[in-house]
Amino acid sequence: MVMFPEKLRKIFDAAEADALFLECDFLRRYATDFYSTDGYVIVTPEECVYFADLRYFEAAEKQLAGSAVKVLEGGYKDALKYAAPYPKLGIPYPFTSVSALKLYEAEGHTTVDCMPAFKAAMLIKSEAELGRIRSACEIAEDALLSVLPEIAEGMEERELAALLEYRMRQLGASGTSFETIVAFGENGSVPHYETGTRKLRFGDPVLIDYGCKYEGYCSDCTRTFLFGDDGKHEEFKKIHAAVLAAHELVKERVTAGMTGREADAVARDHLREKGLAEYFTHSLGHGVGLQIHEYPVLSPRGEERLENGMVFSDEPGVYLAGKLGVRIEDTVCLKDGRVVSFMSKTDRKALIL
Amino acid sequence: MVMFPEKLRKIFDAAEADALFLECDFLRRYATDFYSTDGYVIVTPEECVYFADLRYFEAAEKQLAGSAVKVLEGGYKDALKYAAPYPKLGIPYPFTSVSALKLYEAEGHTTVDCMPAFKAAMLIKSEAELGRIRSACEIAEDALLSVLPEIAEGMEERELAALLEYRMRQLGASGTSFETIVAFGENGSVPHYETGTRKLRFGDPVLIDYGCKYEGYCSDCTRTFLFGDDGKHEEFKKIHAAVLAAHELVKERVTAGMTGREADAVARDHLREKGLAEYFTHSLGHGVGLQIHEYPVLSPRGEERLENGMVFSDEPGVYLAGKLGVRIEDTVCLKDGRVVSFMSKTDRKALIL
Repeated sequence: MVMFPEKLRKIFDAAEADALFLECDFLRRYATDFYSTDGYVIVTPEECVYFADLRYFEAAEKQLAGSAVKVLEGGYKDALKYAAPYPKLGIPYPFTSVSALKLYEAEGHTTVDCMPAFKAAMLIKSEAELGRIRSACEIAEDALLSVLPEIAEGMEERELAALLEYRMRQLGASGTSFETIVAFGENGSVPHYETGTRKLRFGDPVLIDYGCKYEGYCSDCTRTFLFGDDGKHEEFKKIHAAVLAAHELVKERVTAGMTGREADAVARDHLREKGLAEYFTHSLGHGVGLQIHEYPVLSPRGEERLENGMVFSDEPGVYLAGKLGVRIEDTVCLKDGRVVSFMSKTDRKALIL
Repeated sequence: MVMFPEKLRKIFDAAEADALFLECDFLRRYATDFYSTDGYVIVTPEECVYFADLRYFEAAEKQLAGSAVKVLEGGYKDALKYAAPYPKLGIPYPFTSVSALKLYEAEGHTTVDCMPAFKAAMLIKSEAELGRIRSACEIAEDALLSVLPEIAEGMEERELAALLEYRMRQLGASGTSFETIVAFGENGSVPHYETGTRKLRFGDPVLIDYGCKYEGYCSDCTRTFLFGDDGKHEEFKKIHAAVLAAHELVKERVTAGMTGREADAVARDHLREKGLAEYFTHSLGHGVGLQIHEYPVLSPRGEERLENGMVFSDEPGVYLAGKLGVRIEDTVCLKDGRVVSFMSKTDRKALIL
């Protein structure tokens, strides 16, 4: 009997390998819908096998019963032995260590990179995947809403980050999808700011860029607002309005069939009209899925066409070095040709807390 | 002028490469004492260079001023160009991707694994490293102490895990050192249990295996206790006493000069006397440092000799499948030939909450 999850057919054919050998956790999860810290997945022309050690065997058998994935008890040696008859192994080059490669080669295998085949398949999300991303986005928004009333003068950036992460965990997230960025005041002007000990003062801009994981899938969200209005932030307000307009224009105008470059230009052109394009120092967005940064790429160099089922961030930003930064970001998907946001609970416009 | 952090001298010589090329974050941190998410460190016979992009350049320059590390602004291409004159690159095989390897090879380099050289150096911690590990251990213990009074009937495992992680963050940890294990009741019998939704009941055994990171360095701690005494846990108490005795014997009897195998036997022999050796299904301990699992290995197969300055876990455990599990763990170091624990605040004996 041939056992083979349907979604792997195209990947297997495209990889042009005799068998796929997967060690890294998120690709094992993608291939089989089962998650474990350790394990090995081998895909041959006949079947897809999950090697689980004693820690995970029972759970794997239970969860994968009736699926097209066969579960075998065993470790690395057993997996290598199983793969021995297949000379050319497809392995994901960016997610396989040189140590593993040397081992395959010592066993007489040649290798080929199967990541392009996975990448192409993972670009388009299934309904189940979209559901998990939606949950990750809902948890992120609910957590922010619950934290907003607790933001207080004198609070450190890292305190707020810890509280937000705790709330996401309480709401069912397994953890963060990347290191939470909380930037107060002028710290917002660093696009990849590392959350520190700056204390919140009345009138400060607050930039929060964060997300969580739910059943392996990521969310990514950024909100920028003022903590009280001290009447001294007219420039911030003007820039916030321009960034928000760029963010919303992307939702209105980006359609399936456009390239990542064209989507990026929707936001960038608007900021150019406002004289702010030179301060938009990163790309508009990146794919979101099992990884926080995946495909497609929405940037001046993104030549791939956007399609229904793709999930990506819409995150224009403007940064005046050492002074202020505004970024507004939703995780969105393309459905029936149009952009649909996973985020509808938190206010992007609420400038003043 | 030769610029070269002293600790890299031996590593460089042992690696037998023309230059070292480091991409992975914890080795960059070890080599330079500077942390960034992205960056490249190149060590040549003349100097140690940190390539930081615009996000990190300023911070790197500031922190590394006056050190033996030279900071240059640049990305991957710049780093590769800088490394071009050095034919044989030392790269850490377990922490370098096949994609990176192929790139080096395309640039005409050969490679050699420099991880054994790093491993040998990283085995012995400096005073600064010991201080960071001590802080990570103190934060972990303080967090547990603050959480104990909040443990209540009906609480889910994952709730307790989230709360403990939040407290560690509040106390200054950057995050967890591994996925927190909270196991109630019979779930403790799975050594690598995945924290779930089991609710706490009166009389339940509680096993918590957790740790945090402080300035990159890890702590690792396990406590097992009863949530109230329902008078039905005589076997648990007997096993707890045996595991605790094994744990304490290691602190008393393990000395510098013993092999990892001999250290492991101190605990294993005691559990054998109690008829429990067959239920001690893992090794006694593992090295702890920038990584949660590093060297030395304290197991029946550990042939390396323990030395002053090594840091490792002392974690005997006994597991009766589907029934109960007890593990007691401190992070400890070897100093003046003897074991010194980093953990003195939490009670190992407090069986009943």
